[in-house]
Amino acid sequence: MKRDVDAQWNRLAVSKAARLERAGAIAQGKQVEPDAVVRLLEAVLEPGDRLCIEGNNQKHADFLSACLAKVDPQRVHDLHIVQSNIALPQHLDIFDKGIARDLDFSYSGPQGVRLANLVAEGKVRIGAIHTYLELYGRYFCDLTPRVSFIAAQSADREGNLYTGPNTEDTPAVVESTAFKNGIVIAQVNELVDKVPRVDVPSDWVNFVVRSPKPHYIEPIFTRDPAAITEIQILMAMMVIKGIYAEYGVTRLNHGIGFDTAAIELLLPTYAQSLGLRGKICTHMSVNPCPTLIPAIESGFVQSIHSAGSELGMEEYVAARPDIFFTGPDGSLRSNRVFCQLAGHYSDLFIGSTLQIDLQGNSSTATRNRMTGFGGAPNFGCDSRARRHTSDAWLKAGREASSNDAGAMPRGRKLVVQMVETFGEKMQPTFVERLDAWDLMQKFDMALPPVMVYGDDVTHIVTEEGIANLLLCRSAEEREQAIRGVSGFTPAGLARDARMVEALRARGVIRRPEDIGINPLHATRDLLAARSIKDLVRWSSGLYDPPKRFRNW
Amino acid sequence: MKRDVDAQWNRLAVSKAARLERAGAIAQGKQVEPDAVVRLLEAVLEPGDRLCIEGNNQKHADFLSACLAKVDPQRVHDLHIVQSNIALPQHLDIFDKGIARDLDFSYSGPQGVRLANLVAEGKVRIGAIHTYLELYGRYFCDLTPRVSFIAAQSADREGNLYTGPNTEDTPAVVESTAFKNGIVIAQVNELVDKVPRVDVPSDWVNFVVRSPKPHYIEPIFTRDPAAITEIQILMAMMVIKGIYAEYGVTRLNHGIGFDTAAIELLLPTYAQSLGLRGKICTHMSVNPCPTLIPAIESGFVQSIHSAGSELGMEEYVAARPDIFFTGPDGSLRSNRVFCQLAGHYSDLFIGSTLQIDLQGNSSTATRNRMTGFGGAPNFGCDSRARRHTSDAWLKAGREASSNDAGAMPRGRKLVVQMVETFGEKMQPTFVERLDAWDLMQKFDMALPPVMVYGDDVTHIVTEEGIANLLLCRSAEEREQAIRGVSGFTPAGLARDARMVEALRARGVIRRPEDIGINPLHATRDLLAARSIKDLVRWSSGLYDPPKRFRNW
Repeated sequence: MKRDVDAQWNRLAVSKAARLERAGAIAQGKQVEPDAVVRLLEAVLEPGDRLCIEGNNQKHADFLSACLAKVDPQRVHDLHIVQSNIALPQHLDIFDKGIARDLDFSYSGPQGVRLANLVAEGKVRIGAIHTYLELYGRYFCDLTPRVSFIAAQSADREGNLYTGPNTEDTPAVVESTAFKNGIVIAQVNELVDKVPRVDVPSDWVNFVVRSPKPHYIEPIFTRDPAAITEIQILMAMMVIKGIYAEYGVTRLNHGIGFDTAAIELLLPTYAQSLGLRGKICTHMSVNPCPTLIPAIESGFVQSIHSAGSELGMEEYVAARPDIFFTGPDGSLRSNRVFCQLAGHYSDLFIGSTLQIDLQGNSSTATRNRMTGFGGAPNFGCDSRARRHTSDAWLKAGREASSNDAGAMPRGRKLVVQMVETFGEKMQPTFVERLDAWDLMQKFDMALPPVMVYGDDVTHIVTEEGIANLLLCRSAEEREQAIRGVSGFTPAGLARDARMVEALRARGVIRRPEDIGINPLHATRDLLAARSIKDLVRWSSGLYDPPKRFRNW
Repeated sequence: MKRDVDAQWNRLAVSKAARLERAGAIAQGKQVEPDAVVRLLEAVLEPGDRLCIEGNNQKHADFLSACLAKVDPQRVHDLHIVQSNIALPQHLDIFDKGIARDLDFSYSGPQGVRLANLVAEGKVRIGAIHTYLELYGRYFCDLTPRVSFIAAQSADREGNLYTGPNTEDTPAVVESTAFKNGIVIAQVNELVDKVPRVDVPSDWVNFVVRSPKPHYIEPIFTRDPAAITEIQILMAMMVIKGIYAEYGVTRLNHGIGFDTAAIELLLPTYAQSLGLRGKICTHMSVNPCPTLIPAIESGFVQSIHSAGSELGMEEYVAARPDIFFTGPDGSLRSNRVFCQLAGHYSDLFIGSTLQIDLQGNSSTATRNRMTGFGGAPNFGCDSRARRHTSDAWLKAGREASSNDAGAMPRGRKLVVQMVETFGEKMQPTFVERLDAWDLMQKFDMALPPVMVYGDDVTHIVTEEGIANLLLCRSAEEREQAIRGVSGFTPAGLARDARMVEALRARGVIRRPEDIGINPLHATRDLLAARSIKDLVRWSSGLYDPPKRFRNW
């Protein structure tokens, strides 16, 4: 074999130089006027380019993607979009118009139905649906962007960027693009002489445009305590006493929802009464959820690292630098990569889901929507690369292997699903067969879209009790343990009552009374805050909730 | 429950300000003279501090850690060191002198014996041994550094840092420290007016000292092709034809060693003759190993992202920007976090080990040494958070579940152990019981230090053949499949010959001839390069091997 002597090894650099030259007349150095952005994109983008559009949980490069939807599809077409969150209409408009064709993403939330329709019409070709970390990993492997759109709070003249509290994916997007001769275009809310701190060095940024409107930010982690029910409070009590205290869980991640908000609001009251301060929930990988304020103020939570921020929490975070990761400017420094890593290797994840089958597989995927799961599968799986020990992880590992004396001992991550037996519109949560199977068929997917696999789940908590799947000795026991907490759903009614009682006798299933919890005590009086206004009070007025959450 | 109204929420910021004030007289702004560093450390550090010392695979903050070994133990003591690699004598001197007491780390390579002795003497208290990513994750959770020592190539007057090609852990270390009111001290090889590119913004750096000598860099990824044996070539042929081609493995990670170097050097010859160019090994997560040069030059490998660099490869990498991730200055931008992520979510990991037991558990841990495994467990485990599909991953998943019709289908990462049946000094690789069990007992560890767990391994390749553990239907079959490729080791001799033949008939075990490989063809003639000098030629003189590898 011979060396390919004619090979050219700098095609990307040559192509970048050509693109920058075409853009030269449109930009003043790095600065681009808002009304010149469509022309800039037509100059910089080439058909078939892989384009990364920053669309995070919260922060969106919305102006740039709106401009992209206005380019001439004769000039720019068949783009391959890589994007963590598809959240805004213009994210899909570009497919409708033929500007983009291929899509690799993580989560599509509100755009899930339209995305599904565009796929059916052949206007979107899905590469794959990823969790966040694997998508970022592929940015450095086989999905490296040619061009990236990012969003920041401010830029200085050289192009140094300040992201503000929502740094989120920006470092991963920029690094993968800038260091493979790609082009980084930033929209910023303001141009300043000096940025409050440098989140992205100017070296890494090619163009900066001041957006006519500040970038869109979604407040997705706010839950009003007023809407927390007594069933959720009962389940939260079981989680605190039956799982957190039992395993001594200090490092953990909470999913988004009223169930976990209930846990957070019981820490300063119920958990405190059990003497658990300093013993559970000391280190968290979560966004600054307002419902965490009372637990922070009462000294429960000691450290929080966040993937992104939450609207209204800016001043509170800045006033609590011992708890949060903040910059010299006082505002949060978030980073989704590190938050996902810390959470993946922590001792426990707890979250909710829409459906659970009798093997414990769960999914939020429903018919007609194509959504993805964001970071949940990464938090909600056993971390097989983990080698450091903790008491909680070792205890879970011992329980898992107690029936398999010959196996190599290892620890286990606690992965808890916390659900009511019936969900919205009285749909049973426990089902014989996940809707994910229909979705697979409908969209010709290789596998059903499962959020958390049954063999990764360790506990299922419902209003009927806790099923500890680690202690199950067979697939049949596992199924009955799940049926045994499935209440009056068809799956629950079909339980083998004798076997369920045997599992209860062994502690595989535990009812509230088995762990000393009287359901009558599960009242809203236990909540440290019963309204958004209470949260504002706890924060000494530092928390400034978005308008839609204010009713006073 | 009440809010703790007396709580102070900025203790870290207050403590940082006090430390910086004490250091004020010693530094000129951020600049510190080399002979003032010991005083600086005595001013900045406090007893019990958590200190992160940058010690990567390659790059070491060696001057700063040598200075630390000279501080007065009366003033600075009981430090808690968090450090990925313990590589240099001074990294342990500080424990010997009582300056440090606690240690959380990932890998100790050459210092493993001394570390074990210091633990036995009670001078080191080990928190835990981590893989890289989980250690970085804990920097953002419960092991956040108060002070960090890092190493860079150059700094400008403001303190912007240029790491050169060995960026490695620096971003993770600096971010976790700087954004939790910690103090970052950088040693640099030179002070310049303008850094060639900004790897760390000056905002994030508190002190800069020009080290009297450039920081130490270890060339640990260089393997001389002259030392590759024909047995290794035979095994490499089996891997290429029996695994890479079979599964269509495009995205992968290679461990360090002569075994994987043999694979790399067969790509342009043997793999090319099988028509595999463009079909396997196109995207890799590896450091720039010199033995990859022929595969790159012949158009096999299309993209490489690296955790760190390799001495002598600087000019070659700079001349191949389409392959590597490089900065505007031309040099490599490495980043261990992203490389470990990309590798974790890729389709295959292949590496070697010292011992494998009959359940497939493997370990490089040996008696009397306390080493850790660096990144191997992260690459060498099933990625249960993975949700995107690929043909290789789906095929492995189908093989794994073919005997379990009721299970939820999922993909599997290919994790291959490539070993000769006898290792150095004719020690058998296959053993009934890993030395890791003795190590656990000796050092009072909670679990035996296993590098790759048996249930994560999919294939074991030896000179006798390939054992595909995915296809095994029981623990007994698995054991016999392993014995069936264990050659003349006691474990191999104790095989059940009939069962092994039955496994071979089913394709669970495959001998070279079963996949059309004639062992007589496994000669050194197949290597694309047979010496370091050949590698230099392939590189058109761009590769500049360190002196120890030059024999001409």
